[in-house]
Amino acid sequence: MGISRILIANRGEIALRIHRAAHEMGIETVAVHSTADAEAMHVRLADHAVCIGPPSATESYLNVAAIISAAEVAQCDAIHPGYGFLSENAKFAEIVEAHDIKWIGPKPGHIRTMGDKVAAKQTAGELGLPLVPGSDGAVSDPEEGRKIATEIGYPVIIKAASGGGGRGMKVCESEDQLETLMKQAGSEAKAAFGDATVYIEKYLGNPRHIEFQVFGDGEGNAIHLGERDCSLQRRHQKVLEEAPSPILSDDERHRMGMICADAMAKMGYRGAGTIEFLWEDGGFYFIEMNTRLQVEHPVTEAITGVDLVREQIRIADGKPLSVAQDELEFNGHAIECRINAEDPFTFAPSPGKVTYYHPAGGMHVRVDSGLYAGYSIPPYYDSMIAKLIVYGRNREGCIMRLRRALEEMVVEGVKTSIPLHQELLRQDDVLNGDYSIKWLEEWLETREA
Amino acid sequence: MGISRILIANRGEIALRIHRAAHEMGIETVAVHSTADAEAMHVRLADHAVCIGPPSATESYLNVAAIISAAEVAQCDAIHPGYGFLSENAKFAEIVEAHDIKWIGPKPGHIRTMGDKVAAKQTAGELGLPLVPGSDGAVSDPEEGRKIATEIGYPVIIKAASGGGGRGMKVCESEDQLETLMKQAGSEAKAAFGDATVYIEKYLGNPRHIEFQVFGDGEGNAIHLGERDCSLQRRHQKVLEEAPSPILSDDERHRMGMICADAMAKMGYRGAGTIEFLWEDGGFYFIEMNTRLQVEHPVTEAITGVDLVREQIRIADGKPLSVAQDELEFNGHAIECRINAEDPFTFAPSPGKVTYYHPAGGMHVRVDSGLYAGYSIPPYYDSMIAKLIVYGRNREGCIMRLRRALEEMVVEGVKTSIPLHQELLRQDDVLNGDYSIKWLEEWLETREA
Repeated sequence: MGISRILIANRGEIALRIHRAAHEMGIETVAVHSTADAEAMHVRLADHAVCIGPPSATESYLNVAAIISAAEVAQCDAIHPGYGFLSENAKFAEIVEAHDIKWIGPKPGHIRTMGDKVAAKQTAGELGLPLVPGSDGAVSDPEEGRKIATEIGYPVIIKAASGGGGRGMKVCESEDQLETLMKQAGSEAKAAFGDATVYIEKYLGNPRHIEFQVFGDGEGNAIHLGERDCSLQRRHQKVLEEAPSPILSDDERHRMGMICADAMAKMGYRGAGTIEFLWEDGGFYFIEMNTRLQVEHPVTEAITGVDLVREQIRIADGKPLSVAQDELEFNGHAIECRINAEDPFTFAPSPGKVTYYHPAGGMHVRVDSGLYAGYSIPPYYDSMIAKLIVYGRNREGCIMRLRRALEEMVVEGVKTSIPLHQELLRQDDVLNGDYSIKWLEEWLETREA
Repeated sequence: MGISRILIANRGEIALRIHRAAHEMGIETVAVHSTADAEAMHVRLADHAVCIGPPSATESYLNVAAIISAAEVAQCDAIHPGYGFLSENAKFAEIVEAHDIKWIGPKPGHIRTMGDKVAAKQTAGELGLPLVPGSDGAVSDPEEGRKIATEIGYPVIIKAASGGGGRGMKVCESEDQLETLMKQAGSEAKAAFGDATVYIEKYLGNPRHIEFQVFGDGEGNAIHLGERDCSLQRRHQKVLEEAPSPILSDDERHRMGMICADAMAKMGYRGAGTIEFLWEDGGFYFIEMNTRLQVEHPVTEAITGVDLVREQIRIADGKPLSVAQDELEFNGHAIECRINAEDPFTFAPSPGKVTYYHPAGGMHVRVDSGLYAGYSIPPYYDSMIAKLIVYGRNREGCIMRLRRALEEMVVEGVKTSIPLHQELLRQDDVLNGDYSIKWLEEWLETREA
């Protein structure tokens, strides 16, 4: 039989991305949307659309009951969660499966494990992924903390087990600060996440963010699709991503990629996943695993030719991986610019009506966007409105084409980050691929001065 | 030194295509345009723009003096002629070169030879390209005509040596009609082209149009980039093109491709060219060679990854071919739909103001178009306003993606051929790749009935 109608439990460009993959497979789509998104492009293009609630995400895109009943009423046999919202909610995945609807995502148990930072790190270690040297789990006793920190060497970093976004996170330069900072981190964590548990790790001063795309069939077969370098970040948000990483050799890619693929095979992982590492001085250090599609997945699609959303749907439908590791080729270079509706200098969100829209075109230029002239960008959600993905035979050619494409792109009525990307692509460090995860924020400080 | 500023002696999507390739190479562009094209997208995007005359092409895009003086005033060191207009005018190529401006095109002598149907056929034969069996050049004597026709067998076709577009062309089924039809063809040819010379060939009843893309460095090195199947034609105008051809095996592609590449090497051909064949029952028959870029070049770019306009510019700049024959790989399948501003049923041109424009997007979808919302399509030129080029891992996937992309594409204010393409992609013969150059017109007759 196979999947014949997919409910897309998301919005924006990723909802359109899923719609496209489904239609290209001859599968119908059902869009669910908040009242604020009734005029969204994916809603217009979907075969059916169901309004599931008011703008607030908790009442619509995070409203499990409304989504499940929409799936039942519209007779969907599968749900694709996209990224964000319910995509890494293990409970939701279980509810979907309990309703005999196919969950286009990993096994709920794996989502749960990888969603818990301490459990994720432990699992990653057991699966052979290189970890940041540090405490083997939670540390509450200052004495134990001191022992571990001495072992791995200062500086170290203290992190909240249930945390994220920098809260409950402290860098410790020397032993005499350790106890105080552990306490501070613990109470911040308690306040922010309701859980005071902290752990200790080696502090990396100037690392890159390199992540590997993996795919498993849930039956013990898994592949990797190479890495993405997402070091250009502002406040932990990726701004521009590229594949391959400018600093990785083919041998390193192969070695780390196989470690990732083997880990996924051992785990029996199903569907798409991303294993994120910090990289410094040739060493990889596991940060976390995202058990879903990433925003930046198109750069991998560009250099491998594999349609990752199609692959997700196939796997959820019980089909085998469409490509074997040794059939995969990595060709050329791809860069994605995330285009946000925001002021390119202050980063203040800029929702509102798009009065004119003209995407870039031509060879090896891809635009993933739900924008159209006349569309009103609602103020309630993420500010990303388009992804411009450009491919070239090598990094230099890719950058030249990207500059050309940015020149052509027109979005009027709202401010966008297009000028920021144009400025970035004139910076020597970016042109040379010479940047760590700290580069962008440091550059923004000089730029603003 | 190298080329630093290119004059684009064309308009529409191909002018934009050339601008894009130039900018991606760090080369400035100068647009020349008629008064009707002042608001064209490539004019807006070019580094400089020069108005060269009124709408009538003879007074602007075919106005050699105006174009040369624009190139001199704007200090261009190269001219790209695109397709149509002056692209196959050997005299123009000579004038360009006489002004010490690089001609981004073949050697003028080769343009001249291939522009003369009789000389082209003779040259093709000498270079080892398979010809349609027939007269070895012009035939004026009916007795000689009868002898040749008997040798190759009826039906035969009588064609004007300087002709094109079906004028001066007669199919002859039997010997008793031959003399009359030769006379008729001769006088039609005289009336249409000022030259009564005709020749005789084997008549192919139901052939396909298969053409090979070639590239030479002018120094005796040449490659082929595979074939394109352009059999879906209406009144000798291609409507939809694909690569590879659905009916050619890898062996046949390799064999014919190498015959073409060897011919170009022997000739010392420079730049891009297309060798067009009719194909029937496994046999290839040379029709003509186009000594320029083709409208449908992007399908070749999609399956080879080679940027043909960049390659043209490199060759004109004295650089070697960027890729060797044995490095070239043919991957996947690509189809191009020519989107015209015309009624999809009557084919009546539909110029005018585009009130809304939204191109298709997403993975492996390329749109080459100078359209934008608010642009007025002038009534003076060709009706093609956009090319939608879609790539897939195989033909079936490509067609599914193409259908999806056509669903997304919106052009309002004028009629377009989008509905025609959507209808074509529902026809079994098209889906099966089972069509000759006669298929489309025959289908249109049934459709209209």
